[in-house]
Amino acid sequence: MTARKVRAANTLRRPACFGGFAPHVRCASSITQRETNMAFTGRELRTKIDEEGNLVLSLEEVTIDDPADDEIIVRVEAAPINPSDLGLLIGPADVTSAKPANDGCSGLTLHVPSHRLPAVKGRIGQSLPIGNEGAGTVIAAGKDAVSLKGQRVGMIGGAMYADYRRIKANDVIPLPAGASAKDGAAIFVNPLTAQGFVETALTEGHKAIIHTAAASNLGQMLQKICLADGIPLINIVRSPEQVELMRAIGAKYVLNSKDANFGEALTDAIVETGATIAFDAIGGGTLGGEILQAMERASVLTASEYNRYGSMTFKQLYIYGMLDAAPTTFDRGGIGFQFSISGWLLFPYLQKAGEAVAQRFRGRVLDELTTTFASKYTRVIGLAEALDPEILNAYVRKATGEKFLIDPTIG
Amino acid sequence: MTARKVRAANTLRRPACFGGFAPHVRCASSITQRETNMAFTGRELRTKIDEEGNLVLSLEEVTIDDPADDEIIVRVEAAPINPSDLGLLIGPADVTSAKPANDGCSGLTLHVPSHRLPAVKGRIGQSLPIGNEGAGTVIAAGKDAVSLKGQRVGMIGGAMYADYRRIKANDVIPLPAGASAKDGAAIFVNPLTAQGFVETALTEGHKAIIHTAAASNLGQMLQKICLADGIPLINIVRSPEQVELMRAIGAKYVLNSKDANFGEALTDAIVETGATIAFDAIGGGTLGGEILQAMERASVLTASEYNRYGSMTFKQLYIYGMLDAAPTTFDRGGIGFQFSISGWLLFPYLQKAGEAVAQRFRGRVLDELTTTFASKYTRVIGLAEALDPEILNAYVRKATGEKFLIDPTIG
Repeated sequence: MTARKVRAANTLRRPACFGGFAPHVRCASSITQRETNMAFTGRELRTKIDEEGNLVLSLEEVTIDDPADDEIIVRVEAAPINPSDLGLLIGPADVTSAKPANDGCSGLTLHVPSHRLPAVKGRIGQSLPIGNEGAGTVIAAGKDAVSLKGQRVGMIGGAMYADYRRIKANDVIPLPAGASAKDGAAIFVNPLTAQGFVETALTEGHKAIIHTAAASNLGQMLQKICLADGIPLINIVRSPEQVELMRAIGAKYVLNSKDANFGEALTDAIVETGATIAFDAIGGGTLGGEILQAMERASVLTASEYNRYGSMTFKQLYIYGMLDAAPTTFDRGGIGFQFSISGWLLFPYLQKAGEAVAQRFRGRVLDELTTTFASKYTRVIGLAEALDPEILNAYVRKATGEKFLIDPTIG
Repeated sequence: MTARKVRAANTLRRPACFGGFAPHVRCASSITQRETNMAFTGRELRTKIDEEGNLVLSLEEVTIDDPADDEIIVRVEAAPINPSDLGLLIGPADVTSAKPANDGCSGLTLHVPSHRLPAVKGRIGQSLPIGNEGAGTVIAAGKDAVSLKGQRVGMIGGAMYADYRRIKANDVIPLPAGASAKDGAAIFVNPLTAQGFVETALTEGHKAIIHTAAASNLGQMLQKICLADGIPLINIVRSPEQVELMRAIGAKYVLNSKDANFGEALTDAIVETGATIAFDAIGGGTLGGEILQAMERASVLTASEYNRYGSMTFKQLYIYGMLDAAPTTFDRGGIGFQFSISGWLLFPYLQKAGEAVAQRFRGRVLDELTTTFASKYTRVIGLAEALDPEILNAYVRKATGEKFLIDPTIG
């Protein structure tokens, strides 16, 4: 933050908004993008929670400093809205409470119920940029990175919901010739996560994988990898349409958790595949525990003798998402003592896995950019539209199969 | 089982019980203990669940085969009732339903509610011996173990609630001169578990430990080890009396989970000690999750910046007991993604830790048999008394501080 000059959109020297009459998106879009010498000024989406539980989303005017020798400046042309972005964007706020900010200009205000405030104590008062990953064109470069100028790149590192992003050359990947910004916008989070799941499973000695919310973009990538690499994958989805979608891309095991015989079908699939590891995007409720129970039932079915402590088969559940923020509940009586329920996060995982693994993952992403790792978007919106209450509600809904892309160049 | 000849007490050639008049304990005690040549015949406590959900506890007459070259026969003189024994003994049965078995002779019958039957499917129809550990005197030995004859030993391996136990010489530890059977009855489960906790914590890089149900015999041993080894231990108990008990043995951190400020006090103690690992005997309910939340709060308090995914401090909760069989519930919002909730079981742990560690643990137990690893018993009962409904209810209650010892030689 120290290296960027930040002023709120409504405190511009040349005021973009007077009083409370103009719709908030007008204020935001009235900020002029300026590219003079190496000084770039543009919009950046911010989220901030105050002591009273008001969460304000706003577009701030930001002037980007000159790039250091090893840095570049990228004009952002595409940035996906991932579930991991929403956690920061709206925090624990009540989405239905979204309304234009009091000054009618600076963005949207949402309400955070008071009992949820302690969980976000650490961010209160901080104006935080958002957007884990994106893609765009390099418009300026430090002296060690000049070869990148004019190049289209994929990026990771936060603050991507903005017109411009200053970033280390090492944190971008030049896209292959002909790849669009849309093609390159989501080459980090989901592609590395999907590969991370498979690598985690194999490294920890498992031979088949279970995945929930499996019809997501991430889930489809995971299925394609597992098919290519010959690893059995049990997909758990929540509708017949999602079953069809996964079948269409070649999935052998697809179970609808709403089916009456779900538990039995899951046990059967586990007996058949030997799955002892699961990656769960949902987190809340009982599904994770039900998966462990099904693994345990499958182990007991194949065990030769009764063990009062349950089977000796080690079962691992990784919770990597929070589609359901409710508490997690599991019944240990049905899972024995050979289990672990753990969090799984991409960046700590990559750090632990080491640079060689990360390189291998990135190489595969580029090789299979428009096949295995293609993301589908159901809607492309401008940066200002991200603050439209109706649009906000649509992308926050997190319906599997629905996926939004922000393109700051369209508004 | 193949090597032991088993007949039910009520099918003795010389019937011990006619009809339904005699109290069940009379039947059991009417079995004659016989020691002729090398053939020993005595009682063995058994538990069996049938398809209808009747759990029957009985004393069976068992004739022990001659010991193999590397085996010995021990007259059992003391065997503790550990929580881990109760899981097998009464399974998921309703303790208050205990009544003398239908034939009025063969023991006690308890009812297993039908919804709990699937969890014990694997043991239905099997007559299972009980008693993880015990101590007694070697009364016969195979040729490679003759040096043990007459020696008092501590043993582990199940089926200790019996008059006699045939066992491999390797599975016993000769007790020091002057040690009673009572001194040596519980030298495996609790002493090895307590040492296993400390070893696990240090091996996994933690510097302080949290323990629940901490006033138990196990908890007292753990506190003594931690004091001797200089490892901070936060004890969580459930009454002011238990706080006093732990203070009396030198505990610095003792928190009553029923106190109104428990959560804050726990967070403070974690900030002070840096505890990032907990061993939980309770399992059910929310306490385990509350401990992880307190660890997370402590991390966030000391963190320099906000991280949307929670702190980067890895937090480990090991569930090793089931004092509360209710489901486990935890709120991930308050614990971030750097956590693991896992089962911890002594025997798989020892196998993984290796023989050198196990040897070291056993050496320390013998060195500190009557100090660090002394167990206190509140009541000594005979084998037949274990089937008295009133006594059963007393030892099943699992009140911390209450501990029963079975001495088959007294009845």
